[in-house]
Amino acid sequence: MIILGIDPGYATTGYGVVEKTAKGLNTVDYGVIKTPPDEIIAVRLAMIDEAMTSIMDKFSPDCVSVEELFFNTNITTGIKVAHARGVILLNAVKKCGRLYEYTPLQIKQALTGNGRADKHQMQYMVRMVLRLASVPKPDDAADALAAAICHANMSGASKREVK
Amino acid sequence: MIILGIDPGYATTGYGVVEKTAKGLNTVDYGVIKTPPDEIIAVRLAMIDEAMTSIMDKFSPDCVSVEELFFNTNITTGIKVAHARGVILLNAVKKCGRLYEYTPLQIKQALTGNGRADKHQMQYMVRMVLRLASVPKPDDAADALAAAICHANMSGASKREVK
Repeated sequence: MIILGIDPGYATTGYGVVEKTAKGLNTVDYGVIKTPPDEIIAVRLAMIDEAMTSIMDKFSPDCVSVEELFFNTNITTGIKVAHARGVILLNAVKKCGRLYEYTPLQIKQALTGNGRADKHQMQYMVRMVLRLASVPKPDDAADALAAAICHANMSGASKREVK
Repeated sequence: MIILGIDPGYATTGYGVVEKTAKGLNTVDYGVIKTPPDEIIAVRLAMIDEAMTSIMDKFSPDCVSVEELFFNTNITTGIKVAHARGVILLNAVKKCGRLYEYTPLQIKQALTGNGRADKHQMQYMVRMVLRLASVPKPDDAADALAAAICHANMSGASKREVK
């Protein structure tokens, strides 16, 4: 089973592709979709859409695991990220009907057993679970791999489809 | 010049199509895109995308005027609306490069001269400007027509492209 993890952003969206086998998880690919800050948001959304289409076509994931938005104090940034996340969900649902979302807390819990784990602990666990020589870079790609691993490790009952 | 006004929503998106001529504004069409509340948001986004594609193809607007999000206290609803707005901006920019956004205050100001005008005053002005026999229904369609009228009435300097 191929799982695509996504850490949505409008400046940088991370993606991570993981294969779940009887023997464990294998890394297929990971990276980021970057959009130029001097471009209007509609054009940046179109760039994210195009890149997402390529990723969906290339890896044909069986399911997509998208990190839920965590709103901190910056509501302006939050709105832009939500715009991008809408485009990502649209793209994913067009090509793959199985979408799941997890909160940052759920992802941390699934990877480390601690919902308050810090970034270094998370990255360490991504590297360990995927048996990588080093921590995947940039951070958004590691976060996307974490979303994919979280979904792979969830039992059926804990899985939460996008609603 | 054909102007498409949009009042974005994830449950109900209003649209209003207005033709600007030397003699004034004519109503071309208006209505709403509705999505079922029991469907997951990704599917609702796909429905909005499909309906927007039809509208863009049918009317080939010269420009699109999209109401800006106004965040009140309900952040969960706000995030969903922002998801829908992302899909709408994506769709619009694919078919028409000229996107503009206006705040609710700017739209009220442009239609009534008062940024704090109430709903009835706004609907009255939409009816008057477009010389309609009655107020356009539902409210979201009237709001979308207001966004289109706002753009039509703006001088070049006040126009604000989506960013």
